[in-house]
Amino acid sequence: MSPDPLSPARTVTITVRVRYAETDQMGFVHHANFFVWFEMARVAYCDAMGLPYREMEAQGFLLPVVEAQCRFRSPARFDDELTVQTTLREKTRRTLKIGYRVMKGETLLAEGETFHVVMGTDGKATRFPPETLERF
Amino acid sequence: MSPDPLSPARTVTITVRVRYAETDQMGFVHHANFFVWFEMARVAYCDAMGLPYREMEAQGFLLPVVEAQCRFRSPARFDDELTVQTTLREKTRRTLKIGYRVMKGETLLAEGETFHVVMGTDGKATRFPPETLERF
Amino acid sequence: MSPDPLSPARTVTITVRVRYAETDQMGFVHHANFFVWFEMARVAYCDAMGLPYREMEAQGFLLPVVEAQCRFRSPARFDDELTVQTTLREKTRRTLKIGYRVMKGETLLAEGETFHVVMGTDGKATRFPPETLERF
Amino acid sequence: MSPDPLSPARTVTITVRVRYAETDQMGFVHHANFFVWFEMARVAYCDAMGLPYREMEAQGFLLPVVEAQCRFRSPARFDDELTVQTTLREKTRRTLKIGYRVMKGETLLAEGETFHVVMGTDGKATRFPPETLERF
Repeated sequence: MSPDPLSPARTVTITVRVRYAETDQMGFVHHANFFVWFEMARVAYCDAMGLPYREMEAQGFLLPVVEAQCRFRSPARFDDELTVQTTLREKTRRTLKIGYRVMKGETLLAEGETFHVVMGTDGKATRFPPETLERF
Repeated sequence: MSPDPLSPARTVTITVRVRYAETDQMGFVHHANFFVWFEMARVAYCDAMGLPYREMEAQGFLLPVVEAQCRFRSPARFDDELTVQTTLREKTRRTLKIGYRVMKGETLLAEGETFHVVMGTDGKATRFPPETLERF
Repeated sequence: MSPDPLSPARTVTITVRVRYAETDQMGFVHHANFFVWFEMARVAYCDAMGLPYREMEAQGFLLPVVEAQCRFRSPARFDDELTVQTTLREKTRRTLKIGYRVMKGETLLAEGETFHVVMGTDGKATRFPPETLERF
Repeated sequence: MSPDPLSPARTVTITVRVRYAETDQMGFVHHANFFVWFEMARVAYCDAMGLPYREMEAQGFLLPVVEAQCRFRSPARFDDELTVQTTLREKTRRTLKIGYRVMKGETLLAEGETFHVVMGTDGKATRFPPETLERF
């Protein structure tokens, strides 16, 4: 994880080793797992920005996914070592749009995007404080 | 499941009871599970059209997901009884586009879409025989 | 679900249709899913005894798993229609032991057991009221 | 991973960072995930012994789980960094028994065991060659 805090397009990268349980009988990773990896990458992104997800939740900010999409280009297989690159695409005090690329070496396996709203623990929409937004 | 075989927009509906394991610590269903439900609905759709997924695989036709997206409108909770409505949106001999709506009673919880290519067991793109395509 | 409320060994049965996502590249159901099915069966057992799990949680009683075991005798496959039979093996005001049998028709696929403690929402061990215990 | 190749009780350790998707609405990791972590640890154990699981499968040896059990002592939480220690408990040409301990720092969260038979890709029981058995 080596974000450039000055870059407008910040990118954080994590490594994922494919679990046996993530495969299905087609012999590849079941597609739903990519969304779980996106979430891991998102958590790492928040960490790298000094906003650990765990602490955000403790402070009453949840980031439910309101839209998710992924384009699968090439299959992932058991035991593959993959990287997931995460970039912030858009931010407002009420929403975040985050992009992901799953790579196996130089090969792009999948790319996706999630859109989030900022929600309080009461289940209602809320807003980030300006200093939180700035960090993202 | 009561598809109208003459209808251009065929719809098949399944029922899903939310499992405890499908929730996360936010107290709602984790979003990745909706893609698993879509898959269950897709399998039921194929069954209803006289094309059991299991048999299609045995005959050498796989339908990997090459694109998936979902818009989450309202959370699903443990023990909810939901319905997933599935409709064919587009079909060619090489591709299928399928749409989904997850309902809790009259409330729309989520709507999504998946795009599939027809693949042989050798991992290469192939085509449906005309009589298979017709059934979809 | 047809428990005999007078029987000392109450049994509740649910049906599970194997999901594609539950398979792994061995071509069978990944073993961890059996524990998820046990949980579904446990929830159905509580329902049948007039103690919906959801309401128990709302009233402050959680039933975390403190021990789980399963013996896998024969594999389950995609699209199989299975039954899971659930029986109460032991009960005290502080603990429950529940047994499970996963069947495909007349064939026993797996049998398992879970042991639970009664926990309050504060994370501390607690006890069932006598009238709750009686129902189990 | 630093197994002692001379030790009768070989131990291999992996690190697991708890995923958000692994939690449930109780606020802890859902218990079924521990069996997935055991599997990751088992794969790492095989790697460390010079028997990558992927290659064993390619050579026609599968290691289905025929028995699994776990005792959960203390809950795991989102974002926890855990270690899973894996030890071979018994080996024959037809079976393996493997033990696991999940630790959070010095605290034991769970301990479990799995029992495996050696199976060929034809689904029939088979035996390890002596040189494979020796490495385990």
